[in-house]
Amino acid sequence: MTPDYKIFCLVPDLPDSTELEPFVAEMQANRWYTNFGPLTRRFEREMADFLLPNNAADIAVGTFSSATTALELVLKVMNLPQNARVLLPALTFPATALSVLNAGYTPVLSDVDAASWLLSPEIAKAALQDTSFDVVVPVATFGRPIDPKAWLSFQKETGIPVVLDAAAALGVQDVEPELITVFSLHATKPFGVGEGGLVVTADADLVKRAQSLSNFGFLGTAGVVQQIGTNAKFGEYYAAVGLAQLRRWQAVTEKRRQVAAWYSDMLPDGIQRQQGHDAFIPAVLCVFCDGKARHLTEKLASHAIQTRHWYLPLLHQHPALQCVDIVGGHAENLGVANHLQHGLFGLPFHGFLTKDDVAQICAILRDGIV
Amino acid sequence: MTPDYKIFCLVPDLPDSTELEPFVAEMQANRWYTNFGPLTRRFEREMADFLLPNNAADIAVGTFSSATTALELVLKVMNLPQNARVLLPALTFPATALSVLNAGYTPVLSDVDAASWLLSPEIAKAALQDTSFDVVVPVATFGRPIDPKAWLSFQKETGIPVVLDAAAALGVQDVEPELITVFSLHATKPFGVGEGGLVVTADADLVKRAQSLSNFGFLGTAGVVQQIGTNAKFGEYYAAVGLAQLRRWQAVTEKRRQVAAWYSDMLPDGIQRQQGHDAFIPAVLCVFCDGKARHLTEKLASHAIQTRHWYLPLLHQHPALQCVDIVGGHAENLGVANHLQHGLFGLPFHGFLTKDDVAQICAILRDGIV
Repeated sequence: MTPDYKIFCLVPDLPDSTELEPFVAEMQANRWYTNFGPLTRRFEREMADFLLPNNAADIAVGTFSSATTALELVLKVMNLPQNARVLLPALTFPATALSVLNAGYTPVLSDVDAASWLLSPEIAKAALQDTSFDVVVPVATFGRPIDPKAWLSFQKETGIPVVLDAAAALGVQDVEPELITVFSLHATKPFGVGEGGLVVTADADLVKRAQSLSNFGFLGTAGVVQQIGTNAKFGEYYAAVGLAQLRRWQAVTEKRRQVAAWYSDMLPDGIQRQQGHDAFIPAVLCVFCDGKARHLTEKLASHAIQTRHWYLPLLHQHPALQCVDIVGGHAENLGVANHLQHGLFGLPFHGFLTKDDVAQICAILRDGIV
Repeated sequence: MTPDYKIFCLVPDLPDSTELEPFVAEMQANRWYTNFGPLTRRFEREMADFLLPNNAADIAVGTFSSATTALELVLKVMNLPQNARVLLPALTFPATALSVLNAGYTPVLSDVDAASWLLSPEIAKAALQDTSFDVVVPVATFGRPIDPKAWLSFQKETGIPVVLDAAAALGVQDVEPELITVFSLHATKPFGVGEGGLVVTADADLVKRAQSLSNFGFLGTAGVVQQIGTNAKFGEYYAAVGLAQLRRWQAVTEKRRQVAAWYSDMLPDGIQRQQGHDAFIPAVLCVFCDGKARHLTEKLASHAIQTRHWYLPLLHQHPALQCVDIVGGHAENLGVANHLQHGLFGLPFHGFLTKDDVAQICAILRDGIV
């Protein structure tokens, strides 16, 4: 972190040494440090119970080295056609598109909804008039949860499988067992362990095959490569952090909930948030103020308050992503995303902010917006 | 680990909580847990000094999530021709071939030397008569160091770049700055941290570009994808373990050196080891006894002593690796590798073995070999 800021945009909240100690001690007693060791398997079981309380038996949870590799490997084991086309929103962290490309498929970019800033089932259905695709990856952009029931209906109606990229939404995203959901455990996420990702679905065999790919493609007989895999394993250290994080999650969440509530009270009119913002705690607090993002972020910076341009530029604007396809063939079809990009900016949002911090930020915004 | 064995083949030797504590505390004070944080950068600098004492400034060391991903990403940034052909030995851990395939290139399998069990510059030169290749990846199989000077000569004479896959040989493999060397930090390696890999070379720009690929292809402007990358970052937890491991490496090595010496004293005639075995401490103690591997490993198992068939089957025998090419076009050209595979087996080898353990193992081998 650059030391120039007085208030940082994002400060990870991970377990301290005391909280970690029992799990690290257990790992060291096992002398087992990776390769799906006992802590990793326990973390997977506990996360199943966390994500689907009372119905954990209905879902399989698999750990991976990251959400990026998890999404890539899941796409690889879904038996998609060669050169499959994957619909995803133009407004997301680039990893979504990179996973698709690394799996050997073509990203097809869609616009997002003007209120939620997400790819919605309605937008996907409309896209089917213009183009074809073999799978949809809606994204819980900025940590806003996706409606899993609506996407399950889409999957059933169209026969097109749905993989929820809920990378930033662990803790707020409901899990639908009949879909596949990917979560990130990256340090910058609310439920951070450092590096890591989860795949969650009722299809335990799919999780097993994806984890086989994360372990060189070994399946069945030890050390025999049945599929072209890589090394994308999670490791016992991160499982130890995850188990400790789970035990302090209520406290982590409570602090974030309080900060979100202060913002709801104090943010001035004219600063737009994602639809339903009071019903969930976001991963990052990305707001919209038409054409004023630069002005406001400069004002905040002059008070040593950091902001970020999360998930910008839009996917098709990255130099290495010129190869992607766009619904309707032209970037002009991404009307909402194009509009949003000039007004989006990320405010400081983490559990270490005080009420005074939030008050100061909101006062600067109020002054700057007029 | 299965609890049935009295003597295990491999027991990782990683730092304990007390040894880890100062580095974990520092990480937590930083609140920086991945993305090339200060511990990662310090570990890279300290490893440069460890690998090339007094000349650390001449080499760049980059960390990755694994040696497998490190090798893949290095191959991707070497500016190789499309569809490049990569020579590697038929006797190695499958990850070498998987990295080549995941980079988009074709593995070309060569035989190994009868004495060292490695791909040698002589074998590579002879292969040039039969086939073409764009890069060679010699492997430090079982942790036997590769001769970097001989490979530097090969690189200069032929113009074909050489990447040393020294995954298992960190601590015994000399680094030649003009070549690229890849090391593994996997828990099962002598210098284990859990999961991780290193790239070491004088070409700092190559390391930077490979690390850019490990961070989504971001390069230059923050968050802008300049190349199709993935997430293959190392993380601060593993850097903490690595820094602690470096401080106990002498003690780890000393125990392993003692065990290797006991084996040298007590292994019966007829049990063959890699050429030069007294000049290095191997990663795993893989031995050869013509046609008797199965008999001997069954004898050892009956005494609750674990053995392993490291790096078998040969690469082209894995179901998913039927796509590889072979020098001369046929598996029969892999004469030495084919011969070795029926007699190779891995004996227990780690720093927790006692002299009595080694004496018992060697006595069983002596009885069984007659």
